[in-house]
Amino acid sequence: MVNETQQSCSASSSSRSDGGSSSGSESSKDNSRCSTPVLDADRHERLREKMRRRQEAGDKWFSLEFFPPRTANAAVNLISRFDRMGAGGPLFIDVTWHPAGDPGSDKETSSMIIANTAVNYCGLETILHMTCCNQTKDDITGHLQKAKRLGLKNIMALRGDPAGEEWEEEVDGFNHAVDLVKHIRSEFDDYFDICVAGYPKGHPEAESYEADLRHLKEKVFAGADFIITQLFFRPETFLKFMKDCQAAGITCPIIPGIFPIQGYHSLRQLVKLSKLEVPQEIKDVIEPIKDNDAAIRNYGVELAVSMCRELLDSGMVHGLHFYTLNREVATTEVLKRLGLWNEDPRRPLPWAVSAHPKRRVEDVRPIFWASRPKSYIYRTQEWDDFPNGRWGNSSSPAFGELKDYYLFYLKSKSPREELLKMWGEELTGEESVFEVFTCYITGEPNRNGHRVTCMPWNDDPLATETNLLKDHLEKVNRRGILTINSQPNINGKPSTDPIVGWGPSGGYVFQKAYLEFFASSEIVTALLKVLKKYELRVNYHIVNVKGQNITNAPDLQPNAVTWGIFPGREIIQPTVVDPVSFLYWKDEAFALWIEQWAKLYEEESPSRMIIQYIHDNYYLVNLVDNDFPLENCLWQVVDDTFELLN
Amino acid sequence: MVNETQQSCSASSSSRSDGGSSSGSESSKDNSRCSTPVLDADRHERLREKMRRRQEAGDKWFSLEFFPPRTANAAVNLISRFDRMGAGGPLFIDVTWHPAGDPGSDKETSSMIIANTAVNYCGLETILHMTCCNQTKDDITGHLQKAKRLGLKNIMALRGDPAGEEWEEEVDGFNHAVDLVKHIRSEFDDYFDICVAGYPKGHPEAESYEADLRHLKEKVFAGADFIITQLFFRPETFLKFMKDCQAAGITCPIIPGIFPIQGYHSLRQLVKLSKLEVPQEIKDVIEPIKDNDAAIRNYGVELAVSMCRELLDSGMVHGLHFYTLNREVATTEVLKRLGLWNEDPRRPLPWAVSAHPKRRVEDVRPIFWASRPKSYIYRTQEWDDFPNGRWGNSSSPAFGELKDYYLFYLKSKSPREELLKMWGEELTGEESVFEVFTCYITGEPNRNGHRVTCMPWNDDPLATETNLLKDHLEKVNRRGILTINSQPNINGKPSTDPIVGWGPSGGYVFQKAYLEFFASSEIVTALLKVLKKYELRVNYHIVNVKGQNITNAPDLQPNAVTWGIFPGREIIQPTVVDPVSFLYWKDEAFALWIEQWAKLYEEESPSRMIIQYIHDNYYLVNLVDNDFPLENCLWQVVDDTFELLN
Repeated sequence: MVNETQQSCSASSSSRSDGGSSSGSESSKDNSRCSTPVLDADRHERLREKMRRRQEAGDKWFSLEFFPPRTANAAVNLISRFDRMGAGGPLFIDVTWHPAGDPGSDKETSSMIIANTAVNYCGLETILHMTCCNQTKDDITGHLQKAKRLGLKNIMALRGDPAGEEWEEEVDGFNHAVDLVKHIRSEFDDYFDICVAGYPKGHPEAESYEADLRHLKEKVFAGADFIITQLFFRPETFLKFMKDCQAAGITCPIIPGIFPIQGYHSLRQLVKLSKLEVPQEIKDVIEPIKDNDAAIRNYGVELAVSMCRELLDSGMVHGLHFYTLNREVATTEVLKRLGLWNEDPRRPLPWAVSAHPKRRVEDVRPIFWASRPKSYIYRTQEWDDFPNGRWGNSSSPAFGELKDYYLFYLKSKSPREELLKMWGEELTGEESVFEVFTCYITGEPNRNGHRVTCMPWNDDPLATETNLLKDHLEKVNRRGILTINSQPNINGKPSTDPIVGWGPSGGYVFQKAYLEFFASSEIVTALLKVLKKYELRVNYHIVNVKGQNITNAPDLQPNAVTWGIFPGREIIQPTVVDPVSFLYWKDEAFALWIEQWAKLYEEESPSRMIIQYIHDNYYLVNLVDNDFPLENCLWQVVDDTFELLN
Repeated sequence: MVNETQQSCSASSSSRSDGGSSSGSESSKDNSRCSTPVLDADRHERLREKMRRRQEAGDKWFSLEFFPPRTANAAVNLISRFDRMGAGGPLFIDVTWHPAGDPGSDKETSSMIIANTAVNYCGLETILHMTCCNQTKDDITGHLQKAKRLGLKNIMALRGDPAGEEWEEEVDGFNHAVDLVKHIRSEFDDYFDICVAGYPKGHPEAESYEADLRHLKEKVFAGADFIITQLFFRPETFLKFMKDCQAAGITCPIIPGIFPIQGYHSLRQLVKLSKLEVPQEIKDVIEPIKDNDAAIRNYGVELAVSMCRELLDSGMVHGLHFYTLNREVATTEVLKRLGLWNEDPRRPLPWAVSAHPKRRVEDVRPIFWASRPKSYIYRTQEWDDFPNGRWGNSSSPAFGELKDYYLFYLKSKSPREELLKMWGEELTGEESVFEVFTCYITGEPNRNGHRVTCMPWNDDPLATETNLLKDHLEKVNRRGILTINSQPNINGKPSTDPIVGWGPSGGYVFQKAYLEFFASSEIVTALLKVLKKYELRVNYHIVNVKGQNITNAPDLQPNAVTWGIFPGREIIQPTVVDPVSFLYWKDEAFALWIEQWAKLYEEESPSRMIIQYIHDNYYLVNLVDNDFPLENCLWQVVDDTFELLN
């Protein structure tokens, strides 16, 4: 009997949903039993599965199209646009293939690298466009292999525009998008999700609308997973196309491409490229206001909103694809008015996740990179496995070196002149530095009337959560405890809390109070005396640029400082203070003084020497108050330190 | 610069204490990053390291010697003695080698199996004695290999008593304990900690006291780690011996063997065996009271306490080894009077750990076996790796079958007659069963005046923790919700809490409320209706003996129901409700109805048919209230169910 029922047990367990078990062990003898609880199904699903799940749940969604920028500066700006627009919750973004811009190269403006950045550093589900005409099979395969290596999982397969005016088909070459679809499926099996283009009015070069439908059907039957359409101006254009597709036996998702008119010239250019005709009723409105950008944009938003409403109301449309032209305002406005923009994005984890498939199970990180998640992702990009469940006491986390502080996705969004205005054209002493830190915390203008909206350790204004600590932080920064990271203690707030919540609803989140700062050796000496009183309660790590390291961490074990308890799940503990990683972070944190701040000034200048002095002589300190249910004692520790100094 | 300091980081991290990192990864590319935080150094240290650490910390300790029992019933009793005396906190126990009793065999009374049970099922650090004379090298190696395989880590290397009166040394054989020490070191390197015997008065067969000291020194130099002495009657005997050893260059720990006199005959027998002479002053006291066991024991306790005090006060003695003669009272009394008995043993984890080295990192178990930890250990003994950090969603935990419910360490301590008195000589219906469950909960005598101190699912009286729920439990059992496991919700009590605390001090422990019971299909039907109201709050698993399984657990993921937050540590979550393991536990839980209860009655008897009916028709249900910070809602769920039934 025992045998029989055990078999029924195995049967029932093998038929279970397999979400998130990719790292689960198949047998008890498997070494790694620490698979990640499925907190966020999105991290584990393919794009086509996400689409299906959203459709089944009746959730409407949107996606955003961008093109690669022309300059390195524009790339920096585009990445911050990804971050901002990513917060609205697109199901995916896509990056167009720019044949003239060396699209598969390692240049920071290439299609490949922009898509790579969106996936890995911005955590966005991303489709990379790829065109095939005028390219060899080997070129194409090389691009696809590279895309796969970088963690890209979705390709938009296009023909592309022929080089010359008179185009002839090449024998054995790629002449149509369908050839590319077939090639991807034959070389990469089911690895990629494939998207193809649909033309609601028929492709301009097609013999007929019907012939074009037949081509589309070929692409789908060759292995495409879904269709995104060319832009159109009237909802009925799309709805008719959709019905014709269905009648032709095309059953995959068809996503309408929406183009909010944003200006007269961009409209004209796009129409020219796509060989579409603008309907007379639109021309009639636009022509009279063609020099009034704001008016055109307002009209474009109105028009897009009303068209999208009609599409959604038809019941045939579940997602909308926006041609953003790399601009934010119009598209965001349309999405907000449609109620599709996610006003209160739920964080799946307290830090920004990466969408690289190999990082799917990652759910623990050291707290140190909280404000520099892209740097953390960069420095761990060579890892094959990522901590989940526990950080573990790995003796050698093998962080990559951060030699290049000017990688475009790690670079400050602010140019040198702006940084100088914020951080001081001329420093007169350590106190001028204290003042910069204090202004960053308070949000008040510095003595020259400029607000300090970023720091070398944090390219964004103060986090909402940190605002909870603002008064304390202001006080201590004024006196030379130069804080770069902190979190309040939290004793079981709902996971839906707008400020400190993360993860699915119905859970509870917890934190230990954390404070990280630079301070002079005088302060550190006093601090160490004070810490004796708090020996059992406060864990500390104190290190200078030379690596002299003072700590009371037991056996150099990591200390979990953020964790969450969810219904029907194992405990999630996404943030730890890891003593070993701290020594790697220390290198980066000290180097930022020089790379981001000191180098703004002339060599040998007094300002530069002040920063250099701090770099050479200050200590980096982190403190954890283990007694999370009690009032945070770290402010008392700091007060006691100042008192001892007086 | 970044390079340089990274190197200094690696240097500092490699010089760290290595406690508990045996499963830690050496590189980030290692698959398993989930090593266990060192909650309890004891689990990771060798016996000789524990001794050194205790000595350095100035902690006095004790150890206990037992001999293998003669009968299977005596083995059952000895194992419960291990559990009771283990609670007092011995540093180790040792099991003597009984050459006449087939000591290396698989019999439940063999030295090997008793030591195996102590290590694996009672979680005790254990030394197995082994004698070498009259045995071949192959025999000895076989015994040692088996000991290693079973998880034994310490050997007491002895010569043993020669078979005949006239003993001759064998060429190339084992003639002295030192030969066995050398053999262990040459064949097993440093795997075992080795103990040897010391004779404070010299070995009775030695040429002289000095010659015996030389033999002892040889044994130590051949690789012994510490010495336990033969019993003695005067503290000065040991202290002189200790000084002589030190003078002879023996520096390893020397532990005095203490023999509390427990009776006239046992003293005479031991003295005869050990060829020792009882001092006149002791004889003078004992002879007049030789027929008064209690008086002799009291005297023996007094004598032992005063001798131990003198030894400890000398500053030369850090641990005391007790020859228990398998009895509890006298030794426990001596230890309590010396203040060495651990009155409030701290639980390192909420469940009873095993001392097998391969289970060192184990820190997660399903809650189902909470009252049958030995069965859990038995059913997982073939696992090579044990869950730590997370249980993970392993699809096939591969539990061993539990074919033999009569394994002596899984057997009930109570004989059949006693069980019948507790559970009813004759059952008249399901209500008689409800009554047994209710009496077990309340502790009140049943209708025949017998207290129910154990149940098929729990061989011990109700846990203190369960007492917190007593009133509720009584109410529901009376009405046919037959509870077999439960825990209250706990929202952050200190880890030192005497009832629910575990782990090191300074931490906080948490629990989700849990309730597990058998119930009729009528009750289950109503329960399922009620549970709809609690869908987001309560996770349930409901299964019958045939394996029909109803659950709302997301993706069959485990639910952590006990966890602890400690200073400077990652989160520990030792207990989960694992949906897959539940189906294995179900087999065991249902089988216990038949194996432990139904089989007490004649086949075809009405009593047996009642139990068989319950086994065939009832459901096993578990409920978890995920909202641990709120008042436990499971009682409300049950009340609602009863209300619906009315």
